[in-house]
Amino acid sequence: MITKAAIHSRYGDAHDVVAIKEVQLAPFNSGTVLVKMIYSPINPADINMCEGKYYVQPKLPCQLGNEGVGIVEDVSGNNQTVHKGDHVIIPFKSKDHWIGSWSQRVVVDAEDCVVIPKEIDLKQASMLTINPPTAYLLLTQFKSFKKGDWVVQNAANSSVGRWVIYWAKQQGLKIANIVRNKDQINQLNQLGSDLTIEFEPRCANKVKEVTGGVSLALNGVGGQIAIETLRTLRSNGVMVTYGAMSKEPVQVGNAALIYKTVSVTGFNRTKWLETTDRKAVKLMYNKILNIYKSKSISIPIAKVFPFSKIKDAINFSNSESRQGKVLIDWRKSN
Amino acid sequence: MITKAAIHSRYGDAHDVVAIKEVQLAPFNSGTVLVKMIYSPINPADINMCEGKYYVQPKLPCQLGNEGVGIVEDVSGNNQTVHKGDHVIIPFKSKDHWIGSWSQRVVVDAEDCVVIPKEIDLKQASMLTINPPTAYLLLTQFKSFKKGDWVVQNAANSSVGRWVIYWAKQQGLKIANIVRNKDQINQLNQLGSDLTIEFEPRCANKVKEVTGGVSLALNGVGGQIAIETLRTLRSNGVMVTYGAMSKEPVQVGNAALIYKTVSVTGFNRTKWLETTDRKAVKLMYNKILNIYKSKSISIPIAKVFPFSKIKDAINFSNSESRQGKVLIDWRKSN
Repeated sequence: MITKAAIHSRYGDAHDVVAIKEVQLAPFNSGTVLVKMIYSPINPADINMCEGKYYVQPKLPCQLGNEGVGIVEDVSGNNQTVHKGDHVIIPFKSKDHWIGSWSQRVVVDAEDCVVIPKEIDLKQASMLTINPPTAYLLLTQFKSFKKGDWVVQNAANSSVGRWVIYWAKQQGLKIANIVRNKDQINQLNQLGSDLTIEFEPRCANKVKEVTGGVSLALNGVGGQIAIETLRTLRSNGVMVTYGAMSKEPVQVGNAALIYKTVSVTGFNRTKWLETTDRKAVKLMYNKILNIYKSKSISIPIAKVFPFSKIKDAINFSNSESRQGKVLIDWRKSN
Repeated sequence: MITKAAIHSRYGDAHDVVAIKEVQLAPFNSGTVLVKMIYSPINPADINMCEGKYYVQPKLPCQLGNEGVGIVEDVSGNNQTVHKGDHVIIPFKSKDHWIGSWSQRVVVDAEDCVVIPKEIDLKQASMLTINPPTAYLLLTQFKSFKKGDWVVQNAANSSVGRWVIYWAKQQGLKIANIVRNKDQINQLNQLGSDLTIEFEPRCANKVKEVTGGVSLALNGVGGQIAIETLRTLRSNGVMVTYGAMSKEPVQVGNAALIYKTVSVTGFNRTKWLETTDRKAVKLMYNKILNIYKSKSISIPIAKVFPFSKIKDAINFSNSESRQGKVLIDWRKSN
C-alpha cells in the first residue's frame, strides 16, 4: 500500500530538504497493525535529524517523525492488545531511526503500540510519547525521594520542564525552578512551582537557603545557568542533563567533584529505549498514562498545519516568537 | 603526657604558620594505644589545610598530619587487634580534622589502627594511608570489569597514578595513560602501562582506536587534558575526578551527556571514610595490604627531614624541581 509521508533525501536545512512523497508502507503481516496518523508535533530532534546533527544519521532517504497519535485502521492476525479504532502512540524505534510518524499511515508491530485512553485530547496525545516519560524518568531513575523532598530544574517553561513540575507534584515533591525570563515566574507558579527565581549570578544561594540543598537537579540549558543549577546540589547530589538549549557545555568545579562528590550525567529517552526491555517500557507508558488522567496539564499549542504545508510548519516552528508546539495534521492536506 | 607536634594556629602560608609545639596527648584510656610516630609525608592536603583551602577548616590551633607510620609503644586495656611493637597506620579521621600524625606521639583508639606487616619498608608504609586505597577504590567502586578491560587515566606519574597502574595490573586490567610530559612515557611503560601517549588536541582518538573506548576514566588534572580523557569513554562510561592539578574545572560536552550518557563524578578518600562503616574500611585496608606484599611498587622519595626542620621540609615540598615525596622523620630532631 502507498502512503504520503515526510521524507528527507539529503541532509541540510529542514525547510529545504523535507518533502512530502509517496512511499510504500511496510508489509501488513500477521501481528502488525495499520495506523492512520492524526497529529504529529515538530520536535527539535526532528530538525536536528534533517540537518545531520542528530547523534545517529540514518541511511537516506529517511522517513521523519518520532512521535504522534494515530487511530488503528486495521489489525492483521490475532492479537489481544490493540483493536481497530484504538488511539495509539508508537514509542519505539525502528532499527535505523524512528518509527517515521510524519506520515498519513504506518504499518507497525501491534507490540510497538501503546493504547491511549479515549478521553485524552488527541492534540495532547500526539505529544505524549517523548516529553512526559522523559520528565517522569528524570524524576524516578536517578534518586529516590521521600515526600516533601526538593528537586531543582532550569528550562522549566519548556514542555519537559512543565511535565517535570506536573510529575513532581504528583509524587509529592517540591520543585524549585530557575528561569531565564521573569515573565515566566507567574506562569510556573500557576503550574504548581514551589519556588521560582530568576537566573542571576549566585542565584543558587537563594535556592539552597529555601531547600537546604537538593539531591537532584535537572538541566535542559547548559552554560552559566547550569553552573548555578549544579551549585544547588548537596553532597552526593546528581545533575542530569537532558537538553542543551544554550548549546554551551556543562562545567563542573573541582571542589564540587572532589569534596561534594556530586555527579553530572545525562538522559535521553531514545538511548533509554535502546537499553530497556520492551515490556518495562510499555509498563512505564501505561503507568504514566494511568497517572495522567486528571488532565491537569495541557501543553500549549502554537498552531496546527495540514501536512501539505509542512515547510510552512517547519518555518513557523523555527520562529522565535511562537508560544507552544507546532503540530502537523495528517488528515488534512489543506 | 606532653609531646611535640606540628601545629598551625592561624591560616596562611604553610611555611609561616606551621610550628613545632608541645601539646598534651589525649588521655590514655582503656582501649587506646600510644603510638610513637616514625615517618609522615607532606601531602598537598596538609598544605591546603594550613592555607584554609581545604574543604573543612578545623577549629584552631590544629594538629596537622593526615598520614604516617608509627610503632605501638603501649596498649591500654585488653585488646586483640594491636600489640606493643606493631607498626601501624591510622587511616581514620577525628571529628574535626585528621588524626594529627605530624607528631612525635599520638594516643588513638586501638580500633583506629591498621597493623602493617613488618616486611613493609617504613618509608613506603608512611605513604600507604591515602594514595593506595584511593587508587584501589577508584578502580573498584565505580565500574565492574572483566580481565583485559581497559581503564584510562591522566596524572599517571603522580603517586595515585602509579598506584592506579599497580592495582590495574593486579586486577588483570589494561591501563592507558595520557601524560603531559613525554619524558614520562618510558617511566610509565616500565611501571606496566599498556599504552602511554602524550597529551595533544584530539589525542583521545588514539586511545579510542587502541582500546575501543573505555568505561572508566580517572582524572587528576582537569582542563583540556580532562576533556580528552573524557572523550575516550564509551556510552554510559564514567570519569572520576580525584584531583585538580591544573586547577581548571571539568567541562562536559552536551552530546556526551545526552547521547553517550556519560557521567562525571568525584572521589575523595576522606569523604568516603565519612560515609563508610569502620569495619568495611578496615577490611579494605587489610585487603590491599594483603595484595601489596610483592613490593613491586616503590613510590619515589625526594628527601627526609628531621621534624625540627619542618619549615625547610615544607619549602622543599613546594619546590617545582623535587622528584618524589618529602617525608618528616619524627624520631630525629636534627
